Amino acid sequence: MTAISQAYPDRVEVRGRDLAGDLMGHVGFTEYFHLLLTGDEPTDEQRYFLDLLLVAIAEHGLLPSNVAARMTLAADPGSLQGAVAAGILGAGSVVLGASEECAQLLEQAVAAGREPDEVAREIHSAGGKVPGFGHPLHKPLDPRAERILALADERGVSGPHVAFARALRDAVAREWGMPLTLNVAMPIAAVLLDLGFPAVAAKAVPILARTAGLLAHLAEEQEHPIGFLLAERAAQASD
Amino acid sequence: MTAISQAYPDRVEVRGRDLAGDLMGHVGFTEYFHLLLTGDEPTDEQRYFLDLLLVAIAEHGLLPSNVAARMTLAADPGSLQGAVAAGILGAGSVVLGASEECAQLLEQAVAAGREPDEVAREIHSAGGKVPGFGHPLHKPLDPRAERILALADERGVSGPHVAFARALRDAVAREWGMPLTLNVAMPIAAVLLDLGFPAVAAKAVPILARTAGLLAHLAEEQEHPIGFLLAERAAQASD
Amino acid sequence: MTAISQAYPDRVEVRGRDLAGDLMGHVGFTEYFHLLLTGDEPTDEQRYFLDLLLVAIAEHGLLPSNVAARMTLAADPGSLQGAVAAGILGAGSVVLGASEECAQLLEQAVAAGREPDEVAREIHSAGGKVPGFGHPLHKPLDPRAERILALADERGVSGPHVAFARALRDAVAREWGMPLTLNVAMPIAAVLLDLGFPAVAAKAVPILARTAGLLAHLAEEQEHPIGFLLAERAAQASD
Amino acid sequence: MTAISQAYPDRVEVRGRDLAGDLMGHVGFTEYFHLLLTGDEPTDEQRYFLDLLLVAIAEHGLLPSNVAARMTLAADPGSLQGAVAAGILGAGSVVLGASEECAQLLEQAVAAGREPDEVAREIHSAGGKVPGFGHPLHKPLDPRAERILALADERGVSGPHVAFARALRDAVAREWGMPLTLNVAMPIAAVLLDLGFPAVAAKAVPILARTAGLLAHLAEEQEHPIGFLLAERAAQASD
Repeated sequence: MTAISQAYPDRVEVRGRDLAGDLMGHVGFTEYFHLLLTGDEPTDEQRYFLDLLLVAIAEHGLLPSNVAARMTLAADPGSLQGAVAAGILGAGSVVLGASEECAQLLEQAVAAGREPDEVAREIHSAGGKVPGFGHPLHKPLDPRAERILALADERGVSGPHVAFARALRDAVAREWGMPLTLNVAMPIAAVLLDLGFPAVAAKAVPILARTAGLLAHLAEEQEHPIGFLLAERAAQASD
Repeated sequence: MTAISQAYPDRVEVRGRDLAGDLMGHVGFTEYFHLLLTGDEPTDEQRYFLDLLLVAIAEHGLLPSNVAARMTLAADPGSLQGAVAAGILGAGSVVLGASEECAQLLEQAVAAGREPDEVAREIHSAGGKVPGFGHPLHKPLDPRAERILALADERGVSGPHVAFARALRDAVAREWGMPLTLNVAMPIAAVLLDLGFPAVAAKAVPILARTAGLLAHLAEEQEHPIGFLLAERAAQASD
Repeated sequence: MTAISQAYPDRVEVRGRDLAGDLMGHVGFTEYFHLLLTGDEPTDEQRYFLDLLLVAIAEHGLLPSNVAARMTLAADPGSLQGAVAAGILGAGSVVLGASEECAQLLEQAVAAGREPDEVAREIHSAGGKVPGFGHPLHKPLDPRAERILALADERGVSGPHVAFARALRDAVAREWGMPLTLNVAMPIAAVLLDLGFPAVAAKAVPILARTAGLLAHLAEEQEHPIGFLLAERAAQASD
Repeated sequence: MTAISQAYPDRVEVRGRDLAGDLMGHVGFTEYFHLLLTGDEPTDEQRYFLDLLLVAIAEHGLLPSNVAARMTLAADPGSLQGAVAAGILGAGSVVLGASEECAQLLEQAVAAGREPDEVAREIHSAGGKVPGFGHPLHKPLDPRAERILALADERGVSGPHVAFARALRDAVAREWGMPLTLNVAMPIAAVLLDLGFPAVAAKAVPILARTAGLLAHLAEEQEHPIGFLLAERAAQASD
């Protein structure tokens, strides 16, 4: 009932290919992730941007999820998987879910042929927040977002979703009366959609990427433990 | 294949009893937990001490697991279960697993008729740490540990495992050349064993107890969010 | 910054009480959970129904979350906490979240003085599902739901939320043209609200309860492992 | 206190490089994972084998962890991260931890200059199991293991750890009196060590790889849900 893979005594078949003979040694992990997720090998541009977006979002300093994972490993040093799981649980709506919300907004707006000004006005007058705008640290620009947009243009993959994301930046600035940072979530969603990725990729890509970042923090935690210190300082700070 | 419970269209059977007719409204949650875990309803002393130990270990301020759970809820406010899971993952060997290690030590030492001095010497000369001794905050005594031991004596449930735990405190002081705090983990294990609980209870009781504490912190977090602030202070502290 | 508890070298203070002196040995776990969650000790009826609801929802056979937890323990036998966490992650909107949705529906409808027929019609015509109705196994009645409602009447705690839940059962039957099972989620929510519990309790109570059930399944799994067998049969079934 | 990355208003620095300027668009995800984990960019062979090993271990049909994750998503469809976390928690000692144990065995045996026959005999006479041997499905050979070993030879990276792994296969066959499958865990560990990876990589690589497989299963689950069906069949099977 799954079309992804099937294991037999003498071979493993993944998406209709022989894992040992056709894939191992022939495809990189990024291409393989695309094959697993979509059933197809990526085009060159799909692979290039999948790499780019995974690199863009994997790591960003002592994020709350990295801190939570390090505290968890300090408390349970034998379970790397437990600490990774604790960190992934922080990939929620506020922190990493924005790409998913951006993808929904872009998909619906482009499909319905809506105007960015109208979308911005509607959200603003309902007292809402436009997903993908604002960042606690990166002001006025998020360097990762700008870099993704520049490469999308340079390599000719920018399409209607990237165009809408850009126009939305101007519309938001007009509607809110000041520029808001277009953060990394919006270009991730826009580029994935323009390259034909399924909507689930807008959440799956950040989760895979952050797993790599979490593993790096946990490897560092094993060598140089700061988990309990972080917890202690956090708790003292709160007195 | 499970002996715990079975659901039918018109009734749910738990440990051979009718859930709606025989259990709901007749047994408290503590007794029910005992029934689920062991297959039997507890004696009065088993219920009393199960309540006591669950109360003793449920909550202890801004523990790392409470901090990690609050950060996780801040990042993913829609998933109370995700934040609870992140917190439970911190119930590892360093933090809550000590009761399990204490239970193993006590069970083996009492069954083999060993001397506390010999056990302490063996661990010390191997460069090890005796589980259940030492506490970063509670010195020279852990008030929870003392209270459990006092009630065990008062109610006549102290048996060979409680006796060994007490004797081990003196043996450890002699062997290490100074008194070490007997922390809450050791009496939890000793009392559970003297009351005939299965070994798994020494880990299950702290996990259930801490789930209650986590839920309280997460309810407070929903009303009065400090998760991101805790993460920020922790990260700044680490610069 | 937390009002729940604070640990000092010689004592632990929980909700302003001395843990070792005032609480341990004096309050049961159910009362303590109430104190942790709300800041107050429960009234007799609050304690009685908190016990009742925790017992009602803790266990229900080989639920998906129990199966997932047993598979996880089979794969990682050293981490009871990891298997519990995996099981709790299944306490989502489809399975245990219904109580939370029921509480929202009841709270809003009662506060706004709405009619059950109007609420049922509105949901039906929008193509929605009323939370708390329907059950894959329990038909036409969920014995746990009926027992909770009967005890709420018997003990005089039924108030406007229980009344609305009952009237909604009739309204749903009229609107859908057939009776639907009022499942356990709706009385849990209704009774908690009529007893003055905070809304978060409608999710916290099922999570604490299911943790007890998970711990029982995992204790059984340690003695009598079926986790891999369950996974194998599930996978074969899907061929 | 972390050497991995640091975010500033106008740039993000990762391992001393400028994320947007030096890394995004210049390095693939596999290279970036190496940089995050170790602090260095990989050599060509390190990158090639990191890709190979990630591809080898990412997916293997309806594994228990994939089944558990699909059940969890069925129960909580809004939380992709929760279902991924539940699946990762199954990356324990029995299932994916073998690579870590293999790495420890190989590292110690090669460092101490031990003989494979002696190692096999010691484990056998203690009633133990050699990590990395045996597989429920792949007999007599695990095609992934053979492919990794062949490529390691072909590309000239086989060193003392690969040599020990191979010699251990013969020693195990002699000691147990029959050939046992050398499963994928042993070549993963051997190649990583011969290429100079840190020991933590033997656990981190499988976790990152399986996250990709989990995301594929969860994307499929969203399109074509089988989670509850799997749980139901598993539970029926157990009657």
